[in-house]
Amino acid sequence: MGTDRDLKALIASAAGETEADLVLKNARILNVFTKELEEGDIAVKDGVIVGIGSYRGRVETDLKGRIVCPGLIDGHIHLESSMLSPSEFAKAVIPHGTTAVITDPHEIANVAGTDGISYMIESSKGLPLDVFFMLPSCVPSTPLDESGAELSALNLEPLYMQERVLGLAELMNSYGTVAGDEDIIAKINGAVSHGKAIDGHAPALTGNSLNAYVTAGVGSDHECFSFEEAREKLMRGQHIMIRQGTAAKNLNALLPLFDDKYCDRCLLVTDDKHPGDLISQGHIDYIVREAIKAGKSPYNAVKMASFNAAKYFGLKDRGAVAPGYRADLIVVSDLQDFTVERVYKDGRLVSLKGELTAEITKPPVDQGRYRRVRHSFNMHEVSAEDFLITSKGTKKRVIKVVPGEIITDEVIVDSASPEAEPDKDIIKIAVIERHKGTGHIGLGFVTGYGIKKGAIASSVAHDSHNLIVAGTNDEDMALAANTVRENEGGLAVVCDGKVLSSLALPLGGLMCEEDAATVEAKLSEMKAQARFLGVSEGIDPFMTLAFTALPVIPKLRIITKGVVDVNTQSYAPVLFD
Amino acid sequence: MGTDRDLKALIASAAGETEADLVLKNARILNVFTKELEEGDIAVKDGVIVGIGSYRGRVETDLKGRIVCPGLIDGHIHLESSMLSPSEFAKAVIPHGTTAVITDPHEIANVAGTDGISYMIESSKGLPLDVFFMLPSCVPSTPLDESGAELSALNLEPLYMQERVLGLAELMNSYGTVAGDEDIIAKINGAVSHGKAIDGHAPALTGNSLNAYVTAGVGSDHECFSFEEAREKLMRGQHIMIRQGTAAKNLNALLPLFDDKYCDRCLLVTDDKHPGDLISQGHIDYIVREAIKAGKSPYNAVKMASFNAAKYFGLKDRGAVAPGYRADLIVVSDLQDFTVERVYKDGRLVSLKGELTAEITKPPVDQGRYRRVRHSFNMHEVSAEDFLITSKGTKKRVIKVVPGEIITDEVIVDSASPEAEPDKDIIKIAVIERHKGTGHIGLGFVTGYGIKKGAIASSVAHDSHNLIVAGTNDEDMALAANTVRENEGGLAVVCDGKVLSSLALPLGGLMCEEDAATVEAKLSEMKAQARFLGVSEGIDPFMTLAFTALPVIPKLRIITKGVVDVNTQSYAPVLFD
Repeated sequence: MGTDRDLKALIASAAGETEADLVLKNARILNVFTKELEEGDIAVKDGVIVGIGSYRGRVETDLKGRIVCPGLIDGHIHLESSMLSPSEFAKAVIPHGTTAVITDPHEIANVAGTDGISYMIESSKGLPLDVFFMLPSCVPSTPLDESGAELSALNLEPLYMQERVLGLAELMNSYGTVAGDEDIIAKINGAVSHGKAIDGHAPALTGNSLNAYVTAGVGSDHECFSFEEAREKLMRGQHIMIRQGTAAKNLNALLPLFDDKYCDRCLLVTDDKHPGDLISQGHIDYIVREAIKAGKSPYNAVKMASFNAAKYFGLKDRGAVAPGYRADLIVVSDLQDFTVERVYKDGRLVSLKGELTAEITKPPVDQGRYRRVRHSFNMHEVSAEDFLITSKGTKKRVIKVVPGEIITDEVIVDSASPEAEPDKDIIKIAVIERHKGTGHIGLGFVTGYGIKKGAIASSVAHDSHNLIVAGTNDEDMALAANTVRENEGGLAVVCDGKVLSSLALPLGGLMCEEDAATVEAKLSEMKAQARFLGVSEGIDPFMTLAFTALPVIPKLRIITKGVVDVNTQSYAPVLFD
Repeated sequence: MGTDRDLKALIASAAGETEADLVLKNARILNVFTKELEEGDIAVKDGVIVGIGSYRGRVETDLKGRIVCPGLIDGHIHLESSMLSPSEFAKAVIPHGTTAVITDPHEIANVAGTDGISYMIESSKGLPLDVFFMLPSCVPSTPLDESGAELSALNLEPLYMQERVLGLAELMNSYGTVAGDEDIIAKINGAVSHGKAIDGHAPALTGNSLNAYVTAGVGSDHECFSFEEAREKLMRGQHIMIRQGTAAKNLNALLPLFDDKYCDRCLLVTDDKHPGDLISQGHIDYIVREAIKAGKSPYNAVKMASFNAAKYFGLKDRGAVAPGYRADLIVVSDLQDFTVERVYKDGRLVSLKGELTAEITKPPVDQGRYRRVRHSFNMHEVSAEDFLITSKGTKKRVIKVVPGEIITDEVIVDSASPEAEPDKDIIKIAVIERHKGTGHIGLGFVTGYGIKKGAIASSVAHDSHNLIVAGTNDEDMALAANTVRENEGGLAVVCDGKVLSSLALPLGGLMCEEDAATVEAKLSEMKAQARFLGVSEGIDPFMTLAFTALPVIPKLRIITKGVVDVNTQSYAPVLFD
């Protein structure tokens, strides 16, 4: 609530002395403060709720007893994970009742640094979806890796001045935090000095280490895999973000948090959400529905999905249907099915029965300034020779991917072959540095992925988003990699010297300007082709590949300079004796 | 949590790598987040809680299973009502477990304007009780009255820079707010532009007027007299301050607010609290005890008495026993009697078994700068003649005071006498302007007060704190008034030309430098003397007098220019036909 609003006009309208702009008549209002339904009209003036009661308005809509809830808020997402630009993302989530998201532009920051963050801020300006930002705290995620940028506390400092920046994003380096790492302390002090929130990311952290992490000022966690873990973190004062996204699904394990005793410090988040899931499931509304289906209180679920997130992030005028709150409202069918029928953003109807009613135009962005986002590929064409493994030995170290998990395992196989051995389910994998033209290529082997022919490449490769390619032969690998390179980012599926399909993701190699349905159709086609190449059941062809390059999750990963043992943070030879 | 603290040292101590300064061993900790008791050690470093678990410390205190709660917070008090200076007030409330109060220096501001507010800020600096401030929003309380100062939005503006200023205090002019009064809008915008809280004061406000008041940004109310009133305000998004003080007692009516459904947006306050009640009852601990006695959850009560207040005012590091929170802790006997046995402020033991263990020194204050506080009397000596009523008529308009209430009534008596008529329980009452030497004296009659002889005077006279005197004869009235004047403030009881007793309140005519016990002993003596003069049962001799001058509460009041009908905000003749 800034002081630029005409408070006097709002008050006059609230008092019933002047007509409201919009009155939603005969609503049943879900009151998040007392967790009950209340009957009445909702009066809106200048985008702000000014009264609940009996009102007249310039526009009156009879809701005939339908239920009105506050707009839903995703408390933690990496918007890039949708592969959509912010405006296309908005189009996809608004019909599901999302009126605000808090995004951590960690992916684009790893590609394009503060330019990437600024690009996301600019390209989400003025949308009928409020996009707030937490500043990436760990770019790169480990000093071992070669990302497109490094962000220090000093780099982040000016960004706190942006009005939609709410704090410091997930402090993934929990061990560094507990050890008092100077760079992390500086970043924490930066956020604190601006009075901002600090999000956590500390799976399984417990006891005195957790005490230290919380003492450092980390206010939330979205990595709880069990109720007991969440309960300990709650008791230490953290807010718990219950995550149910595409990559990680913790809802079932954390259902007890929806109970009265715990719910007030919990919020709902997706973390990563692919376009297909947005279309087929929904967004935060999906988590609310799932919780209700599991027998949890819809009042608690809605409060967690809106008010609790607003409160945690200090967004004082969101998350409730009450005077002075922003008129971000959703009308739902009932509290069982929880189908979002109408969405109002700042008092304007933006979606009706799942269809957008507002025109959403792409915010103008200075393309010259964001060349680094639009042209994020800085690498030479590769050839089959670049994928030759020249080291020797009788034992082969192989990264084992696990269905449904993002952790990997290590397998040692008796073999002296420097080639892929698809018959043994061993294929070759490479990560090509693509930000700085260094020519670095890390090479290794992977099992469990399943392809028997061809190659698959992706520039979505956590967290540094270099170009990752897996294949049964060096020629197809080179073709897949070069296809993505030519598209300036994206995905490609190649077989026997032919490109079966490719999806261009020219925004940082992570996102595109297409709409969700188009992207999803393409992705579905490509996934089918990947299955045709042989990708195993339970393995997501692209997501699994993307996480194989993340050197902060156990056990064996591959980056631009080779295969890394995550536990020791050191390189491990792929052929040895 | 500023950035001046040594975060690295805190983290190291939390991680158990360095010794804590203090460890409270074997505590049972009341966890406000999950409302349960938890066993463990509490580690404190640099005044901050760094861990719950198992710790070693330079000083270790075995609590042998005693219960530790967060320090208690009074969410709304006029500290001046204690008649004690801030340091003496601190001495009185710390043993009761109060570690922070949010005061509205409304009384001293009416006497000495922003000098009065600054004086309170300076003289509460560095105490082992954190004194926070809300800026008085309605000085004077009505334009009709003659106070010592007028405070505009512009006057308040620089005070928001003070670190202990948390917002704008109770917006008593609720009708002006609903009507969009420019001055009030400016004050609201001032608070909002600094991101500060705005407290309310709107007894019985309901419906669309309440909507308008809340739309204006008013976040709390402490004037609820019934549960239904509180429930409506809660549903509109206000925080409810449950008030149980010396003047107003709403606890019984509001007990349902201690239930799970409502408690999370409710806090505990005293508003006004006299030294005798502080000594005999306690402070916020008393309200917690009373709620527990009434069968309410001690977990909810403690949370309301600490965490909820901190949260409402944006005090992020208070109100919980958790890492990163300030080590403001109380040790209580159990959750039934709730006797405060130990109080720690910033990790330092400041009270043991009801006795202060820390030396509390008066903060140094520049006396020259605050002459206006120290010498707040600007009026000539008065004489009996000044109290002559010269108007004529056959009907006498009399202010009727009501036992146990602060509202007054109007009584019209057939009488042409311009004198007091003690046999009919009608005495004379006068309010003498004392701030600006105008010589104004308002004269009238009062019934229900009860004195049969003598006079009683006080410079505590809400809200303008002019000099009020009630008596059966003009000579004693003059003597009582002159006695208070000579003391530069305070109370006096006079009978038959003799001063029976007086209490000097030289700090703005409202407070003194004596300790609570001394002030209370004196007050008790004076109250006994007032009873000897005949003050009726159920009437507090001084408080009733003080409120008779408050022209914003119905129905008939007296100010410096005469008797006022509050409902019409106009003067009413005291003798008429």
